[in-house]
Amino acid sequence: MSHNTFGHLFRVTTWGESHGKALGCVVDGCPPGLRLDEAWVQAFLDKRRPGTSRFVTQRREPDEVKILSGVFEDDRTDGQVTTGTPISMMIENFDQRSRDYSEIRDRYRPGHADYAYDQKYGVRDYRGGGRSSARETAARVAAGAVARRVLGDDILIRGAVVQIGPHTINRDAWSWDETGNNPFWCPDPNAAQVWEDFLDTTRKAGSSAGAVVEVHASGVPAGWGAPVYGKLDAELAGAMMSINAAKGVEIGAGFQAAAFSGEQNADEMRMGNEGVRFLSNNNGGVAGGISTGQDVVVRIAIKPTSSILSATKSVTRDGEEVDVRTIGRHDPCVGIRAVPVAEAMLACVLADAKLRHRGQIG
Amino acid sequence: MSHNTFGHLFRVTTWGESHGKALGCVVDGCPPGLRLDEAWVQAFLDKRRPGTSRFVTQRREPDEVKILSGVFEDDRTDGQVTTGTPISMMIENFDQRSRDYSEIRDRYRPGHADYAYDQKYGVRDYRGGGRSSARETAARVAAGAVARRVLGDDILIRGAVVQIGPHTINRDAWSWDETGNNPFWCPDPNAAQVWEDFLDTTRKAGSSAGAVVEVHASGVPAGWGAPVYGKLDAELAGAMMSINAAKGVEIGAGFQAAAFSGEQNADEMRMGNEGVRFLSNNNGGVAGGISTGQDVVVRIAIKPTSSILSATKSVTRDGEEVDVRTIGRHDPCVGIRAVPVAEAMLACVLADAKLRHRGQIG
Amino acid sequence: MSHNTFGHLFRVTTWGESHGKALGCVVDGCPPGLRLDEAWVQAFLDKRRPGTSRFVTQRREPDEVKILSGVFEDDRTDGQVTTGTPISMMIENFDQRSRDYSEIRDRYRPGHADYAYDQKYGVRDYRGGGRSSARETAARVAAGAVARRVLGDDILIRGAVVQIGPHTINRDAWSWDETGNNPFWCPDPNAAQVWEDFLDTTRKAGSSAGAVVEVHASGVPAGWGAPVYGKLDAELAGAMMSINAAKGVEIGAGFQAAAFSGEQNADEMRMGNEGVRFLSNNNGGVAGGISTGQDVVVRIAIKPTSSILSATKSVTRDGEEVDVRTIGRHDPCVGIRAVPVAEAMLACVLADAKLRHRGQIG
Amino acid sequence: MSHNTFGHLFRVTTWGESHGKALGCVVDGCPPGLRLDEAWVQAFLDKRRPGTSRFVTQRREPDEVKILSGVFEDDRTDGQVTTGTPISMMIENFDQRSRDYSEIRDRYRPGHADYAYDQKYGVRDYRGGGRSSARETAARVAAGAVARRVLGDDILIRGAVVQIGPHTINRDAWSWDETGNNPFWCPDPNAAQVWEDFLDTTRKAGSSAGAVVEVHASGVPAGWGAPVYGKLDAELAGAMMSINAAKGVEIGAGFQAAAFSGEQNADEMRMGNEGVRFLSNNNGGVAGGISTGQDVVVRIAIKPTSSILSATKSVTRDGEEVDVRTIGRHDPCVGIRAVPVAEAMLACVLADAKLRHRGQIG
Repeated sequence: MSHNTFGHLFRVTTWGESHGKALGCVVDGCPPGLRLDEAWVQAFLDKRRPGTSRFVTQRREPDEVKILSGVFEDDRTDGQVTTGTPISMMIENFDQRSRDYSEIRDRYRPGHADYAYDQKYGVRDYRGGGRSSARETAARVAAGAVARRVLGDDILIRGAVVQIGPHTINRDAWSWDETGNNPFWCPDPNAAQVWEDFLDTTRKAGSSAGAVVEVHASGVPAGWGAPVYGKLDAELAGAMMSINAAKGVEIGAGFQAAAFSGEQNADEMRMGNEGVRFLSNNNGGVAGGISTGQDVVVRIAIKPTSSILSATKSVTRDGEEVDVRTIGRHDPCVGIRAVPVAEAMLACVLADAKLRHRGQIG
Repeated sequence: MSHNTFGHLFRVTTWGESHGKALGCVVDGCPPGLRLDEAWVQAFLDKRRPGTSRFVTQRREPDEVKILSGVFEDDRTDGQVTTGTPISMMIENFDQRSRDYSEIRDRYRPGHADYAYDQKYGVRDYRGGGRSSARETAARVAAGAVARRVLGDDILIRGAVVQIGPHTINRDAWSWDETGNNPFWCPDPNAAQVWEDFLDTTRKAGSSAGAVVEVHASGVPAGWGAPVYGKLDAELAGAMMSINAAKGVEIGAGFQAAAFSGEQNADEMRMGNEGVRFLSNNNGGVAGGISTGQDVVVRIAIKPTSSILSATKSVTRDGEEVDVRTIGRHDPCVGIRAVPVAEAMLACVLADAKLRHRGQIG
Repeated sequence: MSHNTFGHLFRVTTWGESHGKALGCVVDGCPPGLRLDEAWVQAFLDKRRPGTSRFVTQRREPDEVKILSGVFEDDRTDGQVTTGTPISMMIENFDQRSRDYSEIRDRYRPGHADYAYDQKYGVRDYRGGGRSSARETAARVAAGAVARRVLGDDILIRGAVVQIGPHTINRDAWSWDETGNNPFWCPDPNAAQVWEDFLDTTRKAGSSAGAVVEVHASGVPAGWGAPVYGKLDAELAGAMMSINAAKGVEIGAGFQAAAFSGEQNADEMRMGNEGVRFLSNNNGGVAGGISTGQDVVVRIAIKPTSSILSATKSVTRDGEEVDVRTIGRHDPCVGIRAVPVAEAMLACVLADAKLRHRGQIG
Repeated sequence: MSHNTFGHLFRVTTWGESHGKALGCVVDGCPPGLRLDEAWVQAFLDKRRPGTSRFVTQRREPDEVKILSGVFEDDRTDGQVTTGTPISMMIENFDQRSRDYSEIRDRYRPGHADYAYDQKYGVRDYRGGGRSSARETAARVAAGAVARRVLGDDILIRGAVVQIGPHTINRDAWSWDETGNNPFWCPDPNAAQVWEDFLDTTRKAGSSAGAVVEVHASGVPAGWGAPVYGKLDAELAGAMMSINAAKGVEIGAGFQAAAFSGEQNADEMRMGNEGVRFLSNNNGGVAGGISTGQDVVVRIAIKPTSSILSATKSVTRDGEEVDVRTIGRHDPCVGIRAVPVAEAMLACVLADAKLRHRGQIG
């Protein structure tokens, strides 16, 4: 992971600011001959699009993707396929509301990247957070759509929110089908109701809430990942922690494993009809940095949106003490829209691991 | 992070198996003119050496480092300095007890990397875990000693264990001085006593325990880290998750932040005598992927050692169902020796961030 | 150099096909605060634009660049500056003549990349050469314009054609001023006249000609370049050989040095007013992979355009033996337009070397 | 290619100084299950060993390689195989003659890297050239031996010297068998006799001579290489130019192609018994950066050794004008021992290209 590029063989470079002309990505190293068109990518973008419920930002962006290179309508097939050359995708920005940015131009929003960017670069595009805005994640989702083509239909990637604020789900009530029935990607219908009330209160108070996102990949064969610094879990941890507002990452049992005994933690093995069968999955599908064939399970802690209406103590560029209130269109719980983003990162890391594995092992 | 190399400008490549002839690393990109000799590196290695208490492995290894290249005894200074060329360091293995490995040659230890390595590579050095052994971390510690020279004396890196099994410390009782007074790097003397009893019981039962390690870096200036995929916290998450048995990583408030409101989470700012002063550090010293000037704070969940005396259900290479018991010299709580390793990784990531920042910003 | 990206700290990723919707690049790692706008980049693009004389392709492309990200009109300065975030630049394609491509869809042009691409990818955008077209070099020139901002005004990068077909220049007649007075970037006015006749004949015969391009960088300080595999000359060789139709690269005396004696080849040194002064520059400004402070001098051999009117023996995708004649708009001597491209590559490699040096040495 | 590492999936990191304790390399990303032991590597090292004739350096070094990791004597096979983990190889230095180095400690040898290293690093191991010594190439040869295992027996890599000083071979007299019959790897017995006289004269005069080395790879399938910046020829150019004293690189017809017409240069194609057959190989086995299935042909210009007995004008570290004569054991024509080195680089680049191709294409 290097500045604005991640991946080794399946490489993604993203660019663009929140209120610039456009944003996008270049996906390099994608194998040739895979079906890919704008409709396929758009379907994933629509999952993270703003304005889909009152619990996400009300900014109006169609988030329409254009594929500018790397695919070709070969007349020997009946559709458009990847050619093995770099796939450039672009999303134009529309709703860059021409409001006065003077409020945040010189005032650092506490918890936000404003101060750090200024300390590093000395100059920054302050409009809507510029490069540090979560708007960048649209490009990740587009790249993730390509990654899913690399992985093929045998690998299923799904995500859910498992906690909003202090309210967790009941894991015994988990139903993947439920995640589509509420605006929170919540797998537990009862928790979804609690969250609705909680977030309505949060929103009206001009506050914001954190969340925990969980993503799963099923169908990953044993053997992917490259120890010791390219471990599959290390790659995943880096990828997930690069998501805006992420403050923690767990694989499998995660921090719970610290409290386990060796016996509790051991994922015991028996023979099943299709080879080895594990009796538990505390390892989250990764051992020694290599996939085991079990589901890959990752959880990400997302902090509350830093942009809130309440006044918080801050300073200006010139060192004056001020109070900052962020008026604007923001996600009351940015963790919700992080689900398709985390799915995309999981897809990209796995696609890269697949290609690297194939390269080394054949 | 790419197979066995990590870092961008300050690059570390490690090699070696648990029971091979030797292990080591090559540190590339280190600036010239820094004082470096074997004594400096050895002091850090001695902190993770086996056999220092009954709570760590009893394998007898002097872990004596040799610097083979990259330093020069320049007669215009009175000591040995780095030359800017690759620094090769080697540690020979001594205590490769010539016992019968047939027990684990064909039997997969549950929770261990045995099965995953076999699935990936088809062949593995099974002696003592081979490349997947935590013995590899000695090379990281050696590299970390070089990284500390790059960081200089103004940056202080320290680590502690904050949880063993289910037993956490009292954070109000935190004293860095205490970490040297017990065999657990525990900053809370009361917790250390609890752990001693707990681990004695664990050890005698042939079981093992997990732990949570916390590392801090003080004195890091604002501005290090390179968004968005080379974020300082993303690099840290990847680096820490590459440590053997790590299953979770948190920066600052970590998973707690998910339960916070926006107001609770905001690290408010005031002016202090030396510039901006933060009223809290939930961000763990990193915002938008860039250091803020506050302490960088990272926590790592370490699962219990997989090698335990109790019988666990497993299978053989040939698909036979068996019970596995690991008789040998193992850490009852591998989290303890993870402290100097996590410190080393923190030092390496920061050294790399320093050089990259200097490269881009000047 | 990795698929479609080159550089380490100053990283350039290009994308786009000859007859796709657009082409472009993302420049990552550029330092902040540098003046950059479309007019600056356009000036360099205009130097390689098609249709400027009868000796280059007659395709009509305005080659108008748009900067989509990475710059900001900061109101505390009076112009647009880089922000340290990725700079995305795009050039739309206009003159994708809607002619019948069936001729080259299934027939491999000898010497061209058609066959090799098909062997590798199984599918290719055959329109105008697709990704293998020299049209991709427009993106390099745009990136080179940014690189020149990184290098600043003290480093002067200039290029010339020193041979077309068998006709070389008289090096004693070299005048940089002359390179702007003829359509060949020729520094010797007599040679320019010879080339004009030669290329008119070549063009009318439906043939094509090779060329040798030479680029110089003045003002490069001693110390850039990172031995041993990131040697400045190794980076230059890789970058130059990646230019379409390049078949050879020389630094300084190049292949002539093979015939020299040690005495002839030695670049002797004396003290001048501003430090060390060299009595010759056979090393081409690079020793041991590190710049010496002399002019960096690189020569590139460019083969004749493969697309010619004369019939050449070839085969089809289906293995049928055929004759191929390429009717279309092509450069009779692609080496001419390679000059701004080679300048751009030199600028990019030096910008990267500057940042890397600054990172390691401070 | 990054400081002291080259390759992408098959990655080689080298370390060590001419008169340090040892030198070596770490080969990472090598596929598992390949036969590899010290005898195999040693055979290649013996080809570049010092002291094999009076035309190479008389330094006495056994150049005995030790493999420290990455291989395992699996008892299910009858030999030692790679395990997929990093292969560390070390060669200890013996003949570090304890002579007075004061002569070159402060005096810059013209044409040598002394001055450039000092300008960059401010400190250097001056003994025998330190890191800039061609002794580093022993590590490349060791890595190349591993690369040949990756390539397998179907790919044949061979090298020759085709010019020493001004004396070229007669290409019509080329016989690969002859290269083993003279101390110059010369494929033309008549040229070998001319060179013997020429180099005896050169040697006795305390001078040195340049050379041109040519390496071929046969059996490379069509499709390797990754356009546009990872082109096979770009990778080769970078790799070859990183060899000590290299000043030029050509692929196929190289600089001759600049004088060709399009018709002369076209590698026409016909159908043969085993698919496409080319009527010439001006492209040197690479088109559009991708292998064509023909022999890959690379030529490298090697300048004369900078260390000569004749006095040349130079300066000291302190800016004093002096004459420098290098007394010591040096290769009168360093190009001779460059043959096994260039072969090794060719093998490494191809091994990397093979793995990357397999990764992307499957």
